[in-house]
Amino acid sequence: MFTLTAAALGLALNAAASTPVAPLDFKQVQPGVWKATVGTPEDLTLLGAAGVQPAREALATLPAAPFPFRDGDSVGRHDSGRVALRFPLARDEEIYGLGVDFTSMRRTGLTYQLHVDHWGGRAGRTHAPVPFYVSTKGYGVFIDTSRYITVSIGLGVRLSSAEKPPVIDRTTQSKSWAALPRADSVEALVPAPGVDVYVFAGPTMTDAVRRYNLFCGGGALPPKWGLGFMTRTPTAYTAAQVLDEIAAFRSRGIPLDMIGLEPGWHDHAYPTSFQWDPTRFPDPSGFLSRLSVLHVRANLWFNPYVSPTASLYRALLPFAGSHLVWNGIVPDYSMAGARGIFQRHLRERVLGSASAALGGFKIDEVDGIDAWLWPDLAEFPSGHDGEQMRQTYGLFLQRLVLEMYRGLNQRTLGQVRGTNGGASSFPFVIYNDNYDFDEYITAVGNTGFAGVLWSPEVRGGAGEDMLRRIQAVCFSPLALFNGWATDTKLWTHAEVAGDIRDAIQLRMRLLPYWYTAFAQYHYQGTPVVRPMPLVEGFAPPAGEDPNAITDVTEVKDQYLVGDVLLVAPIRPGAKSRRVVLPAGRWFDFYTGRLAGEHETIEVAPPLSRIPLFVRDGGIVPMIGERQFAPARDEVVPLEVRHYGTRPGEAMLYDDDGETFDYERGNHTWTRLSVQRDAAGQLKGSVTPDSNGQRWRYSEVRWTEMTR
Amino acid sequence: MFTLTAAALGLALNAAASTPVAPLDFKQVQPGVWKATVGTPEDLTLLGAAGVQPAREALATLPAAPFPFRDGDSVGRHDSGRVALRFPLARDEEIYGLGVDFTSMRRTGLTYQLHVDHWGGRAGRTHAPVPFYVSTKGYGVFIDTSRYITVSIGLGVRLSSAEKPPVIDRTTQSKSWAALPRADSVEALVPAPGVDVYVFAGPTMTDAVRRYNLFCGGGALPPKWGLGFMTRTPTAYTAAQVLDEIAAFRSRGIPLDMIGLEPGWHDHAYPTSFQWDPTRFPDPSGFLSRLSVLHVRANLWFNPYVSPTASLYRALLPFAGSHLVWNGIVPDYSMAGARGIFQRHLRERVLGSASAALGGFKIDEVDGIDAWLWPDLAEFPSGHDGEQMRQTYGLFLQRLVLEMYRGLNQRTLGQVRGTNGGASSFPFVIYNDNYDFDEYITAVGNTGFAGVLWSPEVRGGAGEDMLRRIQAVCFSPLALFNGWATDTKLWTHAEVAGDIRDAIQLRMRLLPYWYTAFAQYHYQGTPVVRPMPLVEGFAPPAGEDPNAITDVTEVKDQYLVGDVLLVAPIRPGAKSRRVVLPAGRWFDFYTGRLAGEHETIEVAPPLSRIPLFVRDGGIVPMIGERQFAPARDEVVPLEVRHYGTRPGEAMLYDDDGETFDYERGNHTWTRLSVQRDAAGQLKGSVTPDSNGQRWRYSEVRWTEMTR
Repeated sequence: MFTLTAAALGLALNAAASTPVAPLDFKQVQPGVWKATVGTPEDLTLLGAAGVQPAREALATLPAAPFPFRDGDSVGRHDSGRVALRFPLARDEEIYGLGVDFTSMRRTGLTYQLHVDHWGGRAGRTHAPVPFYVSTKGYGVFIDTSRYITVSIGLGVRLSSAEKPPVIDRTTQSKSWAALPRADSVEALVPAPGVDVYVFAGPTMTDAVRRYNLFCGGGALPPKWGLGFMTRTPTAYTAAQVLDEIAAFRSRGIPLDMIGLEPGWHDHAYPTSFQWDPTRFPDPSGFLSRLSVLHVRANLWFNPYVSPTASLYRALLPFAGSHLVWNGIVPDYSMAGARGIFQRHLRERVLGSASAALGGFKIDEVDGIDAWLWPDLAEFPSGHDGEQMRQTYGLFLQRLVLEMYRGLNQRTLGQVRGTNGGASSFPFVIYNDNYDFDEYITAVGNTGFAGVLWSPEVRGGAGEDMLRRIQAVCFSPLALFNGWATDTKLWTHAEVAGDIRDAIQLRMRLLPYWYTAFAQYHYQGTPVVRPMPLVEGFAPPAGEDPNAITDVTEVKDQYLVGDVLLVAPIRPGAKSRRVVLPAGRWFDFYTGRLAGEHETIEVAPPLSRIPLFVRDGGIVPMIGERQFAPARDEVVPLEVRHYGTRPGEAMLYDDDGETFDYERGNHTWTRLSVQRDAAGQLKGSVTPDSNGQRWRYSEVRWTEMTR
Repeated sequence: MFTLTAAALGLALNAAASTPVAPLDFKQVQPGVWKATVGTPEDLTLLGAAGVQPAREALATLPAAPFPFRDGDSVGRHDSGRVALRFPLARDEEIYGLGVDFTSMRRTGLTYQLHVDHWGGRAGRTHAPVPFYVSTKGYGVFIDTSRYITVSIGLGVRLSSAEKPPVIDRTTQSKSWAALPRADSVEALVPAPGVDVYVFAGPTMTDAVRRYNLFCGGGALPPKWGLGFMTRTPTAYTAAQVLDEIAAFRSRGIPLDMIGLEPGWHDHAYPTSFQWDPTRFPDPSGFLSRLSVLHVRANLWFNPYVSPTASLYRALLPFAGSHLVWNGIVPDYSMAGARGIFQRHLRERVLGSASAALGGFKIDEVDGIDAWLWPDLAEFPSGHDGEQMRQTYGLFLQRLVLEMYRGLNQRTLGQVRGTNGGASSFPFVIYNDNYDFDEYITAVGNTGFAGVLWSPEVRGGAGEDMLRRIQAVCFSPLALFNGWATDTKLWTHAEVAGDIRDAIQLRMRLLPYWYTAFAQYHYQGTPVVRPMPLVEGFAPPAGEDPNAITDVTEVKDQYLVGDVLLVAPIRPGAKSRRVVLPAGRWFDFYTGRLAGEHETIEVAPPLSRIPLFVRDGGIVPMIGERQFAPARDEVVPLEVRHYGTRPGEAMLYDDDGETFDYERGNHTWTRLSVQRDAAGQLKGSVTPDSNGQRWRYSEVRWTEMTR
């Protein structure tokens, strides 16, 4: 009846400027990974900045899965400066991912502009705006660009859409009227002349995440000490004060593996000199040697804006961008030459001969805010502009530091405040200055969709507040007390000091479990922290009103660590909380008692305990209390707990804990299994790795937690 | 010593993609108005969308002023998709403008992305992101683009800057360290292949604003009734209920000139049909005729998204954009054909034969939020994309409605929720759903820099709250009670009903003053509402500690209306407030008593009064209490108040109040002056306009307010 113009057909031809809309031409580039190119991609992409090398062998072991879209369902067009993309979205499909967000997990019904930034801004502005999303239909999509892209998920109904929402008069039918009619697509605008797009097959959502992480080289594997405990010291602390701080931990039996030095280790900071301050640190190598003896690694703060007073300044000036940050130059680390200069300086002038005691760096303020950093119109010698550098600066710095440590065959674990897609293999944990407990926990979970790691923050605060936050941070990728900002110490509040120590000791005791979870991340791509939508069986129990579990697509205050441990942090001030248990039976971690089966329970644990639950048949490998993580090749006794009534099986990972030798086969996967014997009794057994490599556990004690 | 690369020099050459940085080549296009073109501007610009015709004769009457920048101080470069601009900024210079913001007036030290949107988002997202700024050095800059531009004001120090801020170690000198080092420039990134830039000379900041407004055709001149009082009715009201509402106003002596009908006047809304609902409005022309008899104009709500059920749909479908909004098509009103179809429909099918009773429209939801409107990647038949249409949609609709009314030789006053640069001549007042009193008042003041009009909102609320809001809205461009959202009426709270009536009557009594203020806006470009930084003598009194007046660059809770009236609204709940009086002596509007002279005073007025102050020598023309504004050519008696002890002079504007005949010379400027006679007594006199046109005041009564 009516005549539709070309434009009305959707992503249609604008003959003057744009190519016609056309199906994306996907070609398989790895098992279950397809790539399509639209237009002419720019030279600087996220995967390129991160320098990713796909883990080909691991990718090949994932289950086969077909390309998830029907022919012609994913389309694109482009002109000289913009690419428009469209992917299908079914009515019953939910989308997760698109980076670390602090308020929600589900993305359907939202519009995001992905932009590296401080937290708290508009949707999509985050420390990690990873342009990767996964679908409950079991696939993932990654858009590989260093530009700010805008993504609308199930929003923006097209005139040409075959199945449009109903037209309803709001005046007379306000209850059935929808403010946000659901669209049948995910659409993305990339302000670039071209872009590469990747699709990752499932069959499950977790498989799609795995493929993404493996395509990025596999997840990070920190050193063993990186999974222990860390504190930071006030910015103007001297070497002597830092050593006193360590002594204070040791004398109280509080574990400590890493100690962070804030800007005061530099002789000039903001802008930064990257030179040890001769007043506060008159003998850096002596200081670092002392740390080695104490089994504590230093972590050094920097932001990357180089002071005119720095010896580095002269060498980096030819690589400087057009704009300063805090009066320091912004080196163009998209250029290998600049990276090399900085790497050499770090290795020779900062680490020096005592490199083993310098565990890593805290890379600050590579995220935002706009008013702090260079403008988008800034120019860099490589020809890249401010927008591109903003999206990739954190990637380049992580890569640079990791490569330097790799050259020393020494693993690192650091912190970074801005990252992006392609970062899965970087051993850096994101952080910020926020202090909202719920938002922190949401972010911890969200990282599981994004190939990054996030750790909440604990500063000062009252006793209960500090305890609840310590309990939570000990169930995040980096167990850190950010002690630089206040005078409060972990032992300041006597009424909770014992519980705080216990919470940290529980972290230490679970190190074999954590280390294996990271090994799964590295070798199999499986996230360390698993948000609930990735957990099998996480859906309303059959026959139960879905509304009884509020909205299972948006449970953001609990998550799994590894395969079997469900963590449900208690917000400071709360006496109890709701926990949604996925399918199967779940057991209390502390007592082994049945907690529930595929249901929502209310728990009111004592102050000393963070709620933890283990799957039926779950196996949890643990060690004894420690003051620091097992040293390189240190051999310790193992306790293996079994929960529930079903048989269980788990693979326990091990290696030397400090070097990259695991990449050359020097690692073990040991099978721990609990089977029912002829008498009906559960019985544990250990099956060593057949590769002949050693593992570092002297004895195995089995504990049947559920009786 | 060190070698600077080209990029390090600032907006430097990226040989691969960008032109070299070059001085902007400004050429005078009107007296005191210069234009420079960088690259190849796109066809759709703000001035083009608004269809502005500069007021050449008025521009020629402004004082001569030189081009404000030194040669080479404003520069630009461009590539195929981006333009970078840089303008100088002195250390002691403050910048205002860049559209309507709700939290601050001063822009120095901020980064803005100008983007038509709902309020409450990031800096620069606003209902009116006008890319025009003015400087305390007495000039203005306008960037004429339909793209989202990013502007950094005094932020982003360049490596090549001649005068860089000092380099300071934060660890040891934290007090003198600056988180935001001040840059010597304003920089803007325009994501387009080219752009036109305009510079407006002073010599004063107000002169620069005047030139901008006159360049845009001069400010809007509403009909007289548009300056009276307006209410809105609940969405499902019938014609009979609307007439009852008017009767309720009349019976209580509350003035009423305009009554707003919400979506329920359409037979389908969200998406919108633009057809009178036959149930609620069975006889539209009879209804409108009845309004005419009552001296009340209807104002009709619409949002522009056309329902498939509308008779208009078929005609507009060929002009539809690729995406729907609330399931309605989005006509491409950048195309004259689409505008013509809609104009014809409004004129023939909505206004019909009773056009005089239909005063205007409320153009809703052309601002945002992103999730409601089309995505930036949307395509329109004209070839314009979603971003361009987002920035201009409100302009096109205002223009379309204004042109339709102009064709009837009938003035209009409407409301609009999204507008932009070039809008000065549009008789539309911006509004939103916010309800923060302080933010509203800040916005009223900010409009004075932006060539737009803003009105705070009054809904329900408790008695005092409602009274204080009514008092404030009666000193804004549109005196509106937004009565559609609640059951509360202006007379619901008996304890304040009399004061509310009095506040509205004061608005009516001041109509000659308001009308002249709008005539100054139209003929001279001077804003109706004048934010304090535009007020001469608004600086710390000589010898007084500037800090005593907090920060005079950021007094955002008071403003002038017209030449002599200082308005200082009282926030609901406040018993008193601070008022900063500019240079000279100021007198209480109500009593004529001296209030202070170039100082900060604390005032604690009774509930019945909004604080108002008049300049020494100030002349305020008033009329008697009214139920509606003077009708076309109606003649009324005039009271002229004189305040203070100095002689005074004011020009009083008049015309027929309803048609566009004033554009053909049918208007008068009458001189009212108060001089001291030989005996030292003040004496008023009237000097009629020499153009022989009539004015509509039957007698003049002089009142000496200060004794």
